Amino acid sequence: VSTANTGAESVSKGNHRHFMSKEIYEQPDTISHTLSNYVNFAERKVQLPQELPFDFAKLSRLTISSCGGSYYAAMIAKYWFEKYARLPVEVDIASEFRYREPPMEKDGLALFVSQSGETADTLAALRYCVSQDQHIASIVNVAESTIARESDVVFPTLCGPEICVASTKATTAQQTVLATLAIAAGKQRGILSDAQEAEMVDALAKLPGAMSKALASEPKIASLDKSLSKAKDVFYLGRGALYPVALEGALKFKEITYIHAEGYAAGELKHGPIALIDEKVPVVVVAPSDALLEKTLSNMHEVAARGGNIILITDEAGAKQAGPDINEIILMPEVHELVQPIVATVPVQLLAYHTAVFMGTDVDQPRNLAKSVTVE
Amino acid sequence: VSTANTGAESVSKGNHRHFMSKEIYEQPDTISHTLSNYVNFAERKVQLPQELPFDFAKLSRLTISSCGGSYYAAMIAKYWFEKYARLPVEVDIASEFRYREPPMEKDGLALFVSQSGETADTLAALRYCVSQDQHIASIVNVAESTIARESDVVFPTLCGPEICVASTKATTAQQTVLATLAIAAGKQRGILSDAQEAEMVDALAKLPGAMSKALASEPKIASLDKSLSKAKDVFYLGRGALYPVALEGALKFKEITYIHAEGYAAGELKHGPIALIDEKVPVVVVAPSDALLEKTLSNMHEVAARGGNIILITDEAGAKQAGPDINEIILMPEVHELVQPIVATVPVQLLAYHTAVFMGTDVDQPRNLAKSVTVE
Repeated sequence: VSTANTGAESVSKGNHRHFMSKEIYEQPDTISHTLSNYVNFAERKVQLPQELPFDFAKLSRLTISSCGGSYYAAMIAKYWFEKYARLPVEVDIASEFRYREPPMEKDGLALFVSQSGETADTLAALRYCVSQDQHIASIVNVAESTIARESDVVFPTLCGPEICVASTKATTAQQTVLATLAIAAGKQRGILSDAQEAEMVDALAKLPGAMSKALASEPKIASLDKSLSKAKDVFYLGRGALYPVALEGALKFKEITYIHAEGYAAGELKHGPIALIDEKVPVVVVAPSDALLEKTLSNMHEVAARGGNIILITDEAGAKQAGPDINEIILMPEVHELVQPIVATVPVQLLAYHTAVFMGTDVDQPRNLAKSVTVE
Repeated sequence: VSTANTGAESVSKGNHRHFMSKEIYEQPDTISHTLSNYVNFAERKVQLPQELPFDFAKLSRLTISSCGGSYYAAMIAKYWFEKYARLPVEVDIASEFRYREPPMEKDGLALFVSQSGETADTLAALRYCVSQDQHIASIVNVAESTIARESDVVFPTLCGPEICVASTKATTAQQTVLATLAIAAGKQRGILSDAQEAEMVDALAKLPGAMSKALASEPKIASLDKSLSKAKDVFYLGRGALYPVALEGALKFKEITYIHAEGYAAGELKHGPIALIDEKVPVVVVAPSDALLEKTLSNMHEVAARGGNIILITDEAGAKQAGPDINEIILMPEVHELVQPIVATVPVQLLAYHTAVFMGTDVDQPRNLAKSVTVE
């Protein structure tokens, strides 16, 4: 397996104004490259680059620790592993996990997600899990990193160096690798049939194209920059595997626009945050058409009643259900449920990017932030 | 066991300007009353009001689902059950849990926390767990509620009717009941010795007095109302079992001041939110003296460097370590680690209350919110 830097051109912005834009636009290619190392498209099977030193079928639990956006990728993976592999997953923020010294059954699998592979809290969580006799796996972008070296098995994201502090292509590459691992787990555990695996592999095969289609929503997103730049606060809402995408969207928005955005599970809105909603607080809802869309739209009635400006990220089928409460619709392509969170990550990246560019912040190097957090 | 209404005087504000203030001040009494039903102080033992229809020693996992502030109480309980009973705990937002249909081992224990006992999403989560052959336990304030009726065993919070929409005494009563359950679990699982149980019961015996001492910080907290009312945003930070208290503080602040407050695990600050910090964004840190205080204080250096105004909720020993970065200190009494989160909940309640009163919002009936959320 090649390292993170393999194939990376000398790093320049190319025709892009910022590294962030360049990295957002690289995603169809980086995901395609990542997938080529994790999937056998001809046989319609997941084919991991490493032999697994453990058997998913024998695991009673998977524990994932990470920080920041990598934590939200892990949260998405929890939905996938539980749904497609019926494997219970515990996800935790590494800085919390490491100090609470959680009870762990011997021979469990502990998985760590870190772009740099040097995140201090994630590394400390890894070392705790070594002391608890866990199998150690990691998903990193830097193959020579400390976290990679201390793992029993490493799943590289292979997306090339990421320059912008706010992660984009590394995040979606992490999500993609996690999706292939969930399928592999589902197969090994006898939950997914060959036919189901083939269907999911087909969905992955279409993912780079779907990412390109999601990028085509850029003009619509760019048109919202001025009104978002005037927001006092922004809420991002989602349900299920789209809830962590809402958290990711809020994180990205915070990082580069310096406007306070917060992600929430859509069902929690009534338990407090709705008190904040007024015409100066737009609500971004990440809700492609699925069984939960109707619930989420019904939550939106109250937001609309408060004068809240609702921006809905959905697909064509979802747009048809949207109704008059929704002020703006950002279209994403209709895709298999498995890859919805990956595709929906693109518009939330672009929303943050365009608002930040409009506001004139230092997009690639936001104030106070470092690319990798190697201190606690 | 008596019901929620037993002993409740006819509900008036008494000498208080708002029900919220009255209910905050009732907490030494309500906790004392709750404890008298869960603890045998003479024998220095936990003595639950109900016989358990399951054996904590035989459980491999506890699953807790709830919404809003009850979810944060459950998050605190996760730290307790894992530390004092070495029982792995999964906590989830009920509106997420119910739809992700998580895999559950048969004969596990599922616990539901709801003040009203009618929370729609929590009830739906309960019914899913019934279908998964789980033992069903609930912590409610209304003994005749639907959630109580559908549970195998009910642990009442016994704090009397709560009128203010923003929960205070019901929240700390939930925390208190959860603490006694964690001790009971630790005993049954052979993790806690008699001596350790006795030590923790003593800590609970001192809890009502500690709550009164925490209330004595009110003049200091009231003096911060004006500056907090001018905040653009507020961050609440904590680590370990104090991290959910930070989330609770932010929720309360949002609900009644309409200023956007967000709670964060202190270790996550560097992974994004620190970009938002400037002199208009105060940071409330919930950090009594413990092994993690030093880490948290070191995170504060960067906040101070950005001009962030830091309000530290800590005890005498913590105050001594605070250093020049800290602008304001709110003192809580020094207490056993077990009860720190319960005691620290008082100052975050008062911070929200006094800021809201200064701003002139409708404290007891904030806009857009209902006391119990009986729709999805």
